[in-house]
Order: sequence, then structure tokens, then C-alpha cells
Amino acid sequence: MPEQITLYTAKICPYAHRVELALEEAKAKYTRYEIDLTNKPVWYAPEVNPASKVPAIAYGGPLVPADQPSPESVKIAESLVLLEFVADLFPEAHLLPSNPVLRAKARFFIDAISTKVTGTWYSFFRKGGSPDEFFTGLEVIQALLPPSGFAVGEYSIADAAIAPFLARAWVNLENDTGAWKEGDGATVLATLQSARFARLNQYIQDLEARPNFKATFDKEYIAESFKRRFGNLRAQAQNQQ
Amino acid sequence: MPEQITLYTAKICPYAHRVELALEEAKAKYTRYEIDLTNKPVWYAPEVNPASKVPAIAYGGPLVPADQPSPESVKIAESLVLLEFVADLFPEAHLLPSNPVLRAKARFFIDAISTKVTGTWYSFFRKGGSPDEFFTGLEVIQALLPPSGFAVGEYSIADAAIAPFLARAWVNLENDTGAWKEGDGATVLATLQSARFARLNQYIQDLEARPNFKATFDKEYIAESFKRRFGNLRAQAQNQQ
Repeated sequence: MPEQITLYTAKICPYAHRVELALEEAKAKYTRYEIDLTNKPVWYAPEVNPASKVPAIAYGGPLVPADQPSPESVKIAESLVLLEFVADLFPEAHLLPSNPVLRAKARFFIDAISTKVTGTWYSFFRKGGSPDEFFTGLEVIQALLPPSGFAVGEYSIADAAIAPFLARAWVNLENDTGAWKEGDGATVLATLQSARFARLNQYIQDLEARPNFKATFDKEYIAESFKRRFGNLRAQAQNQQ
Repeated sequence: MPEQITLYTAKICPYAHRVELALEEAKAKYTRYEIDLTNKPVWYAPEVNPASKVPAIAYGGPLVPADQPSPESVKIAESLVLLEFVADLFPEAHLLPSNPVLRAKARFFIDAISTKVTGTWYSFFRKGGSPDEFFTGLEVIQALLPPSGFAVGEYSIADAAIAPFLARAWVNLENDTGAWKEGDGATVLATLQSARFARLNQYIQDLEARPNFKATFDKEYIAESFKRRFGNLRAQAQNQQ
């Protein structure tokens, strides 16, 4: 029986969203505490995560208000570490398959997200330039997918690791909020919706139809937050040229 | 009972060494195949690892010569994926603790190696410049260590993940083989052997005294290989200035 779980998170953050997806999938009982990333509480870095990032989990210790974390709880950070932690805490949720080969495939998929997708996306999103490396990264991911179903068949932490990035990327493309040239959001979206990415689109539909995703993704809020925080990326990128 | 394991590896490569350490620790039966990284066999990328890197494991399938891999074996790559795979295949070896919190600490330690140590080392080793970020990274690692024992107490894949890098770094410093200014190897080594890194030095002694390390690390061969392959790093770095 797991001890108390307090998740420090932020709706806008894809890394934090990963852990919410895993906790929801596991039907875990947990306290969700929203951190305002533009104005972090002074206690957050010294008492929860020295790196001052979300997500972090305070695990165990006495039941205390989330904004008064106990020194007795264990503090754990890093989204991929936390995905494995949730899978370990709730084995009955099968967030990883039991077969060692399938577990390795799930972790290889996660590695491909880290090395081929998130960096290429942020490079395009924050600096503009060509989306080609992002497309190539998504092709790698698409090639790893089985003909149907999730990353390794049944839903796993590999799916929770990628869904937050794909969902936010699509929102930004739809709203043309990024460092790219005005209108390029629609052009890139058209490529992503073409036959070249047919399997990936089916996968995204499956990810977003999942109850854990619906319970944790507030599209309107995300769109507005991105406009507010990153609406000036294009101007910034042009100033740097 | 695990199926057949063929490990494609190279003595010089720290990433591949990680997996050898885990397999030795688990007393696994496996076939070791040395890949000459300066002259890779033509079949390696198409038939084993498309990324053409070591380590990779061919798992299961019929018993075949390692240089004639069967299409029926599963091919798995990426050193950290393989460490988890070996831990999953040999649960009785306890390459990860059973406690979820300790497992998370082991994975957080591995994340710190990836983000704070390997990159800062290669930057110093291959490009010269200041070793300060490498020192800072090692201080992060040192601060994560318990007062005695291994990364999370008992030996785990966290220790197998770092030992190959520390051992090779020390060999290169001792032999002054790196892009740094001639003689800086000894200066950096003196700092690393000072009281500032006392706990880290004890840890390295413990890592290198472990039978799995002794069985897999050929210091003379490594030193000679580095001299041969990277002996001209200093000249290259100076030419680029």
C-alpha cells in the first residue's frame, strides 16, 4: 500500500503532465499542488526540489498541507524517474509490461523521445528555423509503433512520456504560437496531418481519447497560457537574427 | 530462465562497459563479441544496431555465431535501457533494490550521471578548457552518495552506470591524454585526489575492487587504446583555436 503522494506540478508543463498521466492511469490517490512557474513559492526549491523544477513528488511522511512540506517525506524529482516510480508503486496498474523485452522496448521508446523529439521540437518552437529535424524525430517514433495500439501494445509509461509533448506541440501549431515565421504553424500542421504521419495521427487520437489524458489536459488553459508566456517568441527570434 | 544473450561491445567504450558490469554482476551466461569501433563489420548496423553503436544485445532466437546474427533474436540497444533489461532478466541479482524509493534514487543517480558528468567530462577531454563543470558534476554525484557503500547502499545499476566513465577519465588524466594543455592531466588529478573529493575517491576504490569491475576492465589495453585513438586531441584542439 503506497504512502501519501503529493505531486508538485504545473498544467502548462509537459514534463509534469507525464507524471499526472501515470498517476491517473494507476488510479492513485494523490494531492495535486499547482506551482506557478512564473512566480514560484519561496519554499519550493529549499524544501521540495533544489533544481526548482516541476514535477516533484513528496512521498510518505505525515499528512501535511502541500505548501508546508514535511522534512520527513522523501522528495523525488525528474519526470522519467517519477514515471518508473509510479510504475513501481502501483504494479497492479501495469504501467510497464511484465515481459523484460517489452519493458526494454518501452524504455527504448522513451529514450527516443528524449533524444529525437523534445529537443528538435523546442529548437523549432523557441528558435524557429526548419522543422525537418522535428519531422525526422517523429518518423523515428512512428516507426517504433506497432501496427495498432500504444507504444508497446498496452498503455505504458512510454505513452505517458510522449503524450504531453505531442499535445502541446499541436496546440502551439494550431495557434501559430512559436518562434517560426508567421503562418508556418499551419504549414507544419498540414504536413503532420498528411499521409506521411498517418500512423502517428492514429496514435495521437488514441492517446488523447484515454481517460487519463482527458482528466489532465485542459486545452483552452494550455492555449491561453502559451499565448501569454510564449506569444512573443517570434519577435524575440527575429530580434536575435 | 533467460534466453541466449549476445553482447556486442568494445573494451574501450564506457557505455558498453556498463552492460558488461551488469551481466558479470548477475553472473549471466552470455556471448561477448568485440566490435572494432574503428572498423565496424558491415553486417553490424543492418543486422544488429541501425545506430551502429555499442552496446547492443541480441536476445533469444537460435544459437548462432555472433557475427551471423539471427533475424529471430530481439535486438536491443542503448546502455541505460540495457542496464534495466539485465536487472529485469536477473531479478535474483538485485541489480535494483526492491524498495520503490531506493529504485527511484538509483534512477535519479543515473540521471545525474547523464546530465552532470558524461557531458562535462567529454567537453574537457575532447575540447580542453576549464575542468570546473566536470568538478561540479562530480560534487553533485558525491553529494548523492550515502556515507558508505554504493550509490544507493547495495551495488546497483547506478554504480554500473558510472564506474566505466570514472575509470576511463582517471586513466586519461594519469596519461595526460586529452585536449587539455600538456600537464593539466596531473593538475586535475591532484584536485580529484584532494580532500574535496574524499568520499568520491572511496567510492571509486569500492567500484574498482568489485569482482565485476576486475573481470571487465583491462587498464593497460584501455590506456594504450586511448593513446592511439585520442593521442592527437591536444593538437586538434590547438588547431581549432
